[in-house]
Amino acid sequence: MEGRRQVQAAAAAARGGSAAGRRRGGARRLRGRGSRSLLTAPASDRQPPKLFQYPKMVHHKPDEATADETSISTLPPSYNPSQAPPVYKVGYPPQKNLTTEFTNTLRETFFHDNPLRQYKGQSGSTMFKMGLQFLFPVFDWIRTYNLSKFKGDLIAGLTIASLCIPQDIGYSKLAYLDPQYGLYSSFVPPLIYAAMGSSRDIAIGPVAVVSLLLGSLLQNEVDHEKNKEEYLRLAFTATFFAGITQAALGFLRLGFLIEFLSHAAIVGFMGGAAITIALQQLKYVLGIRNFTKETDIVSVMESVWGSVHHGWNWQTVVIGFSFLAFLLLAKYIGKKNKKYFWVPAIAPITSVILATLFVYLFRADKQGVQIVNNIQKGINPSSVHKIFFTGPFVIKGFKIGVVCGMIGLTEAVAIGRTFAAVKDYQLDGNKEMVALGTMNIVGSMTSCYIATGSFSRSAVNFMAGCRTPVSNVVMSMVVLLTLLVITPLFKYTPNAILGSIIISAVIGLVDYEAAILIWKVDKMDFIACMGAFFGVVFKSVEIGLLIAVSISFAKILLQVTRPRTALLGNLPGTTIYRNTDQYPDAMHVPGMVIVRVDSAIYFSNSNYIRERILRWLTDQEEKVKAEGLPKINFLIVEMSPVIDIDTSGIHALEDLHKNLQKRGIQLLLSNPGSAVIEKLHSSKLTEHIGSNHIFLTVADAVRFCTSKSMEEP
Amino acid sequence: MEGRRQVQAAAAAARGGSAAGRRRGGARRLRGRGSRSLLTAPASDRQPPKLFQYPKMVHHKPDEATADETSISTLPPSYNPSQAPPVYKVGYPPQKNLTTEFTNTLRETFFHDNPLRQYKGQSGSTMFKMGLQFLFPVFDWIRTYNLSKFKGDLIAGLTIASLCIPQDIGYSKLAYLDPQYGLYSSFVPPLIYAAMGSSRDIAIGPVAVVSLLLGSLLQNEVDHEKNKEEYLRLAFTATFFAGITQAALGFLRLGFLIEFLSHAAIVGFMGGAAITIALQQLKYVLGIRNFTKETDIVSVMESVWGSVHHGWNWQTVVIGFSFLAFLLLAKYIGKKNKKYFWVPAIAPITSVILATLFVYLFRADKQGVQIVNNIQKGINPSSVHKIFFTGPFVIKGFKIGVVCGMIGLTEAVAIGRTFAAVKDYQLDGNKEMVALGTMNIVGSMTSCYIATGSFSRSAVNFMAGCRTPVSNVVMSMVVLLTLLVITPLFKYTPNAILGSIIISAVIGLVDYEAAILIWKVDKMDFIACMGAFFGVVFKSVEIGLLIAVSISFAKILLQVTRPRTALLGNLPGTTIYRNTDQYPDAMHVPGMVIVRVDSAIYFSNSNYIRERILRWLTDQEEKVKAEGLPKINFLIVEMSPVIDIDTSGIHALEDLHKNLQKRGIQLLLSNPGSAVIEKLHSSKLTEHIGSNHIFLTVADAVRFCTSKSMEEP
Repeated sequence: MEGRRQVQAAAAAARGGSAAGRRRGGARRLRGRGSRSLLTAPASDRQPPKLFQYPKMVHHKPDEATADETSISTLPPSYNPSQAPPVYKVGYPPQKNLTTEFTNTLRETFFHDNPLRQYKGQSGSTMFKMGLQFLFPVFDWIRTYNLSKFKGDLIAGLTIASLCIPQDIGYSKLAYLDPQYGLYSSFVPPLIYAAMGSSRDIAIGPVAVVSLLLGSLLQNEVDHEKNKEEYLRLAFTATFFAGITQAALGFLRLGFLIEFLSHAAIVGFMGGAAITIALQQLKYVLGIRNFTKETDIVSVMESVWGSVHHGWNWQTVVIGFSFLAFLLLAKYIGKKNKKYFWVPAIAPITSVILATLFVYLFRADKQGVQIVNNIQKGINPSSVHKIFFTGPFVIKGFKIGVVCGMIGLTEAVAIGRTFAAVKDYQLDGNKEMVALGTMNIVGSMTSCYIATGSFSRSAVNFMAGCRTPVSNVVMSMVVLLTLLVITPLFKYTPNAILGSIIISAVIGLVDYEAAILIWKVDKMDFIACMGAFFGVVFKSVEIGLLIAVSISFAKILLQVTRPRTALLGNLPGTTIYRNTDQYPDAMHVPGMVIVRVDSAIYFSNSNYIRERILRWLTDQEEKVKAEGLPKINFLIVEMSPVIDIDTSGIHALEDLHKNLQKRGIQLLLSNPGSAVIEKLHSSKLTEHIGSNHIFLTVADAVRFCTSKSMEEP
Repeated sequence: MEGRRQVQAAAAAARGGSAAGRRRGGARRLRGRGSRSLLTAPASDRQPPKLFQYPKMVHHKPDEATADETSISTLPPSYNPSQAPPVYKVGYPPQKNLTTEFTNTLRETFFHDNPLRQYKGQSGSTMFKMGLQFLFPVFDWIRTYNLSKFKGDLIAGLTIASLCIPQDIGYSKLAYLDPQYGLYSSFVPPLIYAAMGSSRDIAIGPVAVVSLLLGSLLQNEVDHEKNKEEYLRLAFTATFFAGITQAALGFLRLGFLIEFLSHAAIVGFMGGAAITIALQQLKYVLGIRNFTKETDIVSVMESVWGSVHHGWNWQTVVIGFSFLAFLLLAKYIGKKNKKYFWVPAIAPITSVILATLFVYLFRADKQGVQIVNNIQKGINPSSVHKIFFTGPFVIKGFKIGVVCGMIGLTEAVAIGRTFAAVKDYQLDGNKEMVALGTMNIVGSMTSCYIATGSFSRSAVNFMAGCRTPVSNVVMSMVVLLTLLVITPLFKYTPNAILGSIIISAVIGLVDYEAAILIWKVDKMDFIACMGAFFGVVFKSVEIGLLIAVSISFAKILLQVTRPRTALLGNLPGTTIYRNTDQYPDAMHVPGMVIVRVDSAIYFSNSNYIRERILRWLTDQEEKVKAEGLPKINFLIVEMSPVIDIDTSGIHALEDLHKNLQKRGIQLLLSNPGSAVIEKLHSSKLTEHIGSNHIFLTVADAVRFCTSKSMEEP
């Protein structure tokens, strides 16, 4: 703490007087320093003599003794104390000690939503109960659960079950897993989520994009055909680590990490993944046996057209496309009239039943129509022993798990937030992550692969009138029944119908309207969006994801290294100073350059900011010379947007000041924030610049400069 | 371009009327809307009727026809047009087309220093000449070169030569290379730099930290004892790629990438590296033969104390420590009195001569004093054929080269900038990088390893009165002479003296004063500094560097995900609104909450900002309830510091607006910047919020709210 005291003493000294002379945390106010511009009309018609009067508010009387002599010496000769309004000096924030400061930063970073607010002043047992309810929201909502709610949940649950069963079988194929694993993943995870999750609308289960990503990452490590068992084990290992990652992010309150994937990049990535998935389904819909293992559009198209003469199976094509047309029509009807939302919801299971019957009756499988064949009967077997906890596959499983877990989280949290906003309830992102993580950890031990919230099924769930996570329980029960009883019935289901169902499901992920909006609002975002999209479509999901993440990061880095600066001018007739680009009415004040820095000054941009400010000055000097205007003697840096500064920033300002001194130009600062003014003081930069050259507003600084220039003609 | 037109049309429509009604790029000004607060005194004593009058400036007359009816309807009943000052509305920046916008962004990112400024309007041949001078500044300064300048350069060159020869021999040992390679690297690179570099004070050659880093990275790949030839080849390969990296960064104007290593992290890293290097020298100074290969302080100390009884050579210890004392004394003298700067500069070579003589005369090498033995005679042989251009070592060499090249750049650019600031000349960072890169590429082909600017030698160069890069040429010539003639004389030089010289040289890199200043100014920076320091000292250079880079990045990420927000209050008697934390005098305005967002709103922080604003509101609502103050009906978001917004940010604002609507609170925005207002328009968010709820200043917004609340009692 010795160092800290030193800092405080230094800071106090830098503030230009005894520590007592400075009111702790108070804005220093100077009555009787003219706040009028010398360029304007006589004093009598400027500013009101009366102050604002607010009811029931205490007005801190400022300490008159702190008046700064240097400031007063700059007053215009004509000033009249009785009429001048109060003038404030730049305020110092109340000094905080190191621990408080550190705790505040921590709290703001990790607990900005103040999750413990409600626990304040509660007894021990209440707190335990509340903690339990916090971890298992089921204890919260179950108390008010009633029949009317159950009715809603039942209908919604049945609807999403009918939707999820064919999807599960199809998605597990995307992950190169046997169909039962898809169904397993729609049985256990939804039950866990129902107990721990706080979203009321999300529908849990395997989803297309994560399945595709998982399959393609796993396939890079182990071949699913040659080493089937090892592949499966790695899949469970990845699921386990995906769960660990999700739970850890939530528990450590690092959930904000998923926000580094920008909205635009996600739109592009999802759209690209949807196209890729749809293209993969051509294999089933066209009945092609020798299909490429690549996922890029070029290879797939070569595969498709290369086998046009002898590779396509016309019976499959007929089944596939007629049902695809039926599904798309159902989707269209559902979209046209929200009342018929159930049409697209039950269309898939209807198609499955019809197509299966058709194949069975006509024995179309003998004609080359590929069928699902065997789905293992029975509920999830344990898979604890299958997870790799040692050996080289641990690291591989961990890496794949982290990537898939993050993507799964991104999807689930986005869905959760969307519906929470619609129904107006709060959703704690970090708590959701713990729920999703636990669900996947348990899932990995019960033969499930990564499950998360599904866009399409959640929307159906919402529209079918779900009220609580019980709809997930209902769905889970239906899946259980399916596993126990009716899997053999899927034997004759043609793969083509599953392909059609997946195509019609993922098509909604191509959000071209969002892409258009992104184009309109932000071109850089659009580049990120398209980069991710084309990366996925023309190369692979991993490359697309990599592009999405890289562009997102590049944008952040660009933002911090190349912040904006603006030249300010005066709006005639006011004391307002604004960007001359945005307000062409704003006029340059002769003899000075006013520059606003639009960012915190950190190591990553300090050099740029210094050079950019000097360039503004040079530009203006040239202009002034060309137009024969008075020489520039003052540079005012408006620091309102500069919320923080670090040591590199301090060095940059110091360099700027030295450089200006050599040119005979005075540097003035306006409105530095609390963090900035404190650091300027502790580095003694205020002494170098002169504390009388730091002002509360640009207007004050301009006034000072004007009076100075009049003194020295 | 179709899309663009659509955007413009949509934007125009969003602006609430015909496109003609909006003056292209003009601030809309409304005469006759009262800018007084209803809470204040009568209108007659507020604001001056006369406008600022600036000489020789054109005042764009605003279009009076654009008056916004909705705004006028909110006027207080008592308003008097003849006395009210002009009121401005939020301005739209002039519409730029896509290409202009894109070019501007590119220019600002890569060419913010406008390097082509001087080429404007020049003829072809002049431009060629200027381009040549740009690439080879030697053509520029050689024309005004004269005898007086040469005198300065000669003295400086001789001084740094005497300093560099023993250092070169020692530093090459740090890189596990034979001593002649250090000397080679002080011959060719300085010559190249003299032709291409623009710093007048930098002294080029091998430096301690890069040598240590290079040695430790190379050793991870190839053992320098077992595969000496391969090790050497990899060293040249790394040097080649270091040069390529440096030149490429400069050429592509990506020089700002080196700014991602914060000043604080560099201070810590350098200090740690200096300690590590000094510890390594104990091997030579104590004459220990079995020394650890690890560089961390624990292993080194174990090595040192483990061999205290039979491993130390007392003759070596005597030589080492007496000369170390002599060198430190010389350093102290030089520091005390700047006139004697040459004392520490020539002390090393004097020590070498004395110690060599001593060993030769007393044949101390027979007593176990380790000596340099053989330094190969002759100038640099070609090493083009030694660089790996194929095979697995290319990638390894590339990686090592990138890391060492970046560190070398960081050091050289920092030195260059420091001295340029002192002597007040401009230094183009990107151009410097091209020069340094070319120098290392050529170096790698002439048996040199990575050279860069040395802190200690550059300082001596400066103090010895160098005027141009000719001092480097002089030094290079002395090294050439050494290589050709006197290397055999170094045979009996004891290793201990080289160790002492290195210890006394690197000790200056432990910049504890900078560390103290960092502690005072910014605690987060101090953590980065200490992290890098302890990482290097207790683990290894690579780990220290990794920590430095990670903490620097973490700081950037934290800055963008957790921007600050502040609650604003009114400074009584003014229309100024400031952070209530910094200005305790600032008073809350009843019935409204004013929040300032202190950062651009991007995907990385949009959710946080939305939630944080809502928390400010909740906090204030609780406070208001507890104190029985009027209900909060308005939320004003002050957006001055919000310089940009992306699609995620737009979504966040939209969510905020919807959420507030449900609570019956009106959202108002104040002073959005040009980029922000344009995006608000193109996303039609202005329509949702209402364009009459967007104001130029907080004061305007407060006035609007106050009049609204008076209308609806």
